[in-house]
Amino acid sequence: MNNEMLIRITRYYRALNKLRTIGLEKVFAHNLADAAGVSAAIVRKDFSQLSIHGQKRGGYEIIELIASLGKILGKGDSENVVVVGCGRIGKALMHYTGFESDGINIVAGFDNDISLISDERNTIPIYPVSKLKEICEKLNVQVAIIAVPESSAQDTYAHILECNIKGILNFTPITLRPVATQDGSNPVVHNINIGLELEQIFYELKFPKK
Amino acid sequence: MNNEMLIRITRYYRALNKLRTIGLEKVFAHNLADAAGVSAAIVRKDFSQLSIHGQKRGGYEIIELIASLGKILGKGDSENVVVVGCGRIGKALMHYTGFESDGINIVAGFDNDISLISDERNTIPIYPVSKLKEICEKLNVQVAIIAVPESSAQDTYAHILECNIKGILNFTPITLRPVATQDGSNPVVHNINIGLELEQIFYELKFPKK
Repeated sequence: MNNEMLIRITRYYRALNKLRTIGLEKVFAHNLADAAGVSAAIVRKDFSQLSIHGQKRGGYEIIELIASLGKILGKGDSENVVVVGCGRIGKALMHYTGFESDGINIVAGFDNDISLISDERNTIPIYPVSKLKEICEKLNVQVAIIAVPESSAQDTYAHILECNIKGILNFTPITLRPVATQDGSNPVVHNINIGLELEQIFYELKFPKK
Repeated sequence: MNNEMLIRITRYYRALNKLRTIGLEKVFAHNLADAAGVSAAIVRKDFSQLSIHGQKRGGYEIIELIASLGKILGKGDSENVVVVGCGRIGKALMHYTGFESDGINIVAGFDNDISLISDERNTIPIYPVSKLKEICEKLNVQVAIIAVPESSAQDTYAHILECNIKGILNFTPITLRPVATQDGSNPVVHNINIGLELEQIFYELKFPKK
């Protein structure tokens, strides 16, 4: 499965979970097409490639489709995530509600600022960074979001890998340099670079694609 | 210029601005390679393609390079941005410091929550959404970040386009449906979908690429 198809499948999966929560039982290719921003023909082609077939009278059972796509996406295991760096961005991510229908849970934050850690209003606990390994092992966490200041991004990245974290969503504008992991595996790193996205928007406005 | 090259050029440009602020005058291809996460050979190839040549003794004058790349990226114009939706994520973006070296300025926020608008601790003003068009025209804003709740994302998008905003960074998990603009131009929309990035990380951990 190529990356674009994976993104579409993930979008279908999320849309299906939403449709289920509002009580729908059946869905049509064009419903999913709208949700994923593609044509109904592409939805049908994707499903046909995955050997998923609709009903005789048209449409798909939502519950069956969720099960099929969930299997393809490897769902069912724990999808616990921690946030390292609990400044404004980190805290906002800890309380982001857009994850809920995906089965992704932010289970803890980590920061070295004592005032953040002891804040009694925290609904998700914040621990000192020194506890990262212990807590992540206890909570079976393999994925972390890095939202620390730019200057400590690379050190944080190296430390996180020592704590057996395998997947990283890097929210800092830093390009992380590769770090060897203890078991020789390659960590999965995705970057969200807000400045870079804005730069590209400005660029495309100034020099529109023909 | 393809998209990957544009991203690299933007990364070089940002790295150069940082190097300048710490007082450096000269830079070598491998410095920029480190900052952009590519090899020095790629940096040299990019520059050669752009007809940018180094000095006889090796290296490039930072100030000249910033001017050349800035011209390519269309720099120099106002890069004012507004944030629509000033909840946790929106507020965090308004105060994000990673933009500063790029010449991107967040000049205002918009929200319908009166308590946010009248908060005297705001260092960047927050206005009611009804003032979007007026303020954006006054401040020459063409780019907006959407950080509203999922349920109002599509309506906000349609409203923003009516206010002559041409570029949108969509921070909601919604796939925005195309909306016709008054002048018939196509808005530039980029999406930052945190949930989707995390899903992909989990997927790649479960099914590693060979």
